[in-house]
Amino acid sequence: MTPALQELASLDRTIHEPARLMIMTVLCAVSEADFLYLQRECGLTQGNLSSHLAKLEDAGYVFIEKGFKGKYPLTICSSTSAGRHAFREYVQTMQAWLNSGQKSVRNRS
Amino acid sequence: MTPALQELASLDRTIHEPARLMIMTVLCAVSEADFLYLQRECGLTQGNLSSHLAKLEDAGYVFIEKGFKGKYPLTICSSTSAGRHAFREYVQTMQAWLNSGQKSVRNRS
Repeated sequence: MTPALQELASLDRTIHEPARLMIMTVLCAVSEADFLYLQRECGLTQGNLSSHLAKLEDAGYVFIEKGFKGKYPLTICSSTSAGRHAFREYVQTMQAWLNSGQKSVRNRS
Repeated sequence: MTPALQELASLDRTIHEPARLMIMTVLCAVSEADFLYLQRECGLTQGNLSSHLAKLEDAGYVFIEKGFKGKYPLTICSSTSAGRHAFREYVQTMQAWLNSGQKSVRNRS
């Protein structure tokens, strides 16, 4: 087996959770996103999105700004530099695993 | 965003857990593996490996055979057809996500 396998053990659990992985994927690809856009892109309920955003904010991975657009509340989210760094590391670990550790499975049924 | 993003929501949680992802990676690449080999490859403690193997066995993803080699107990583990199928689906979902959803992040710092 390759070193890429054991690196899975050090995957950032904050990002590894599927809903948060979706959120970080979006927020690392755009400069900012409002709450409703994020909700639609990720297919999450309002409560789920709020809860996962709070965890990402606690980790210092996202920045959340609550304001108004006219009379309507508007929540704008963006990834922080630390969040993009953690996301890149996560992607690299998964990419290394995909490139090496599981290749031989393709020939088995 | 791409459909690959929302497919993350349906990732098989039994396999997604990092220790179990390591175990399945090994067991889908070899015909069988004994407990000590698996422990060394994955860098897991005996208790952790036992616990994760039990969850994979409950899901029908691995087959565990306990016996003896001479006087010594020997536990042989292998992936089941259902396990290999679930693992392949997991790999495909992660590969699709890596190929599409997070490309644009590479140009941001």
